[in-house]
Amino acid sequence: MTINVLFAAGEDRWPLYKKPLLDAFEGAGLDVSMSMDIPPGQVDYLIFAPNGGISDFTPFKRCKAVMGLWAGVEHIVGNATLAQPLTRMVDIGLERSMVEWVSAHVLRHHVGLDTHIHGQDGIWRNGILPPLAMDRPVTILGLGELGSACAEALSQLGFPVTGWSRSSKAIPNVRCLHGAAGLNEALTDAQIVVVLTPLTAETENLLNADRLGLLARGAFVINPGRGAQIDDDALLAALDSGQVGHATLDVFRIEPLPEDHPYWAHPKVTVTPHIAAETRPDSSAKIIAENIRRGEAGEPFRFLVDRSAGY
Amino acid sequence: MTINVLFAAGEDRWPLYKKPLLDAFEGAGLDVSMSMDIPPGQVDYLIFAPNGGISDFTPFKRCKAVMGLWAGVEHIVGNATLAQPLTRMVDIGLERSMVEWVSAHVLRHHVGLDTHIHGQDGIWRNGILPPLAMDRPVTILGLGELGSACAEALSQLGFPVTGWSRSSKAIPNVRCLHGAAGLNEALTDAQIVVVLTPLTAETENLLNADRLGLLARGAFVINPGRGAQIDDDALLAALDSGQVGHATLDVFRIEPLPEDHPYWAHPKVTVTPHIAAETRPDSSAKIIAENIRRGEAGEPFRFLVDRSAGY
Repeated sequence: MTINVLFAAGEDRWPLYKKPLLDAFEGAGLDVSMSMDIPPGQVDYLIFAPNGGISDFTPFKRCKAVMGLWAGVEHIVGNATLAQPLTRMVDIGLERSMVEWVSAHVLRHHVGLDTHIHGQDGIWRNGILPPLAMDRPVTILGLGELGSACAEALSQLGFPVTGWSRSSKAIPNVRCLHGAAGLNEALTDAQIVVVLTPLTAETENLLNADRLGLLARGAFVINPGRGAQIDDDALLAALDSGQVGHATLDVFRIEPLPEDHPYWAHPKVTVTPHIAAETRPDSSAKIIAENIRRGEAGEPFRFLVDRSAGY
Repeated sequence: MTINVLFAAGEDRWPLYKKPLLDAFEGAGLDVSMSMDIPPGQVDYLIFAPNGGISDFTPFKRCKAVMGLWAGVEHIVGNATLAQPLTRMVDIGLERSMVEWVSAHVLRHHVGLDTHIHGQDGIWRNGILPPLAMDRPVTILGLGELGSACAEALSQLGFPVTGWSRSSKAIPNVRCLHGAAGLNEALTDAQIVVVLTPLTAETENLLNADRLGLLARGAFVINPGRGAQIDDDALLAALDSGQVGHATLDVFRIEPLPEDHPYWAHPKVTVTPHIAAETRPDSSAKIIAENIRRGEAGEPFRFLVDRSAGY
């Protein structure tokens, strides 16, 4: 029997995802009819992104799963009309691009690239030798798939890595801490902090003035997670006081970041336009197809969201 | 019996190296008298750097080894007065700082950091998605200690890495090529090239116009090795034609690079002031001490230079 899949992830995504998804369905041996326009009562699976126009899931009576196309699910997880199982995307392309972006910015700040990228003026600035990575403690907040992968990559590059998560985790060569007490310990004397916690009520303003004050003086803050996890006023104050040396921010409470936001003009802030990690059509299509196969076979879904935890 | 060690590596290095060396000698159980001023006929071991003022090794009749403090030995290897064994520095600090600098610049070009570092003007430039590292071939010229360590680190970050060396090498997960034919194959369609060959007569102008023409169009050239391995005019022409997208150069035929050199002003060149890797006093002092211990025990020296090969 043909499986009806509604693509509710925005018209701009349709040309990017249509062929990879159809190929992946065929590869998984699934007989799928996919469209952006299927009567709600006939939808078997719903591919979801926040800009796809759906906010009321009540009419999707026979839908077996709502499958998020992105890693973050904070836009949908609290939706009271959503009774269906919700999965989120854990895409190898997404993970690799996050690891590459995070490693690039950690090394950029570690080695001090900006001095030379900006300093092409004929002056031979060879006086400052950075410490080795082994003497530069890095802390990753959040040890989900993305945070864990970044922790592993930075550890392989030689950094002493501390990871923090809500519940206890274990990653080889990474000092793993958890819970409220672990958070303060993880931040204390860190020279680089990478924010990769999921956005929940508990993690909003996670990096506030008190916690920024625990970092090593002049520390670098890198946020490729979610904008609301940083208290913006506290960060700006910490940058001005020298407590934080530089912040590289990829995510913001409002995106695109408004042109007149103080982050754009601040000399110690680098704004990047939510590019750290993006789902890749080919690899993520395979995840979607695999979950439909599982749904049809009565197997548990992969990457099912725990809605009480919020991710 | 006390071992006389002459420190002939420049006065500016003496305060940095004196204590680490004395500590390392003590740690190795050696009874050493070290100074910058010992009559040549009484010197047992000579610690050498090009700026140390020694060019005639003839009077050092009883000297058992000349121990270079740097990785490069091109300034001394051809010295006809040098009859003593010559060792060069293979320092873990040097190696790690090279890996960190190379990884930082490879990732910087790969991810496209400069667009955002320069573009803090309120414009949300989120249109360009870089490929994943797995789709960005990187070639390392030179597979000595530094080149091999960089190849390994870049491979761990997900890049498909090709390494080229004069003679055959094998490194896990790295496509290793060698010899003249291997060189062209290694450069063909490479998107990023890192130059880490030792400077010898054979490697001078290694990257000439023909070989730059083999790279993928818009490739990035990164040179933390030796300046003379690049034909500067050919590189400038390739940058102007678009064949090379950007060059990041840490080493030059004349250092400091003269203020009026075209590299400083070229918008597609980043000059860095020979900072990619520097010997670290603590770790390199241990290598020196270990080699003196070996010399006294009649064991073969580590990192002995093959003077016919030139490194």
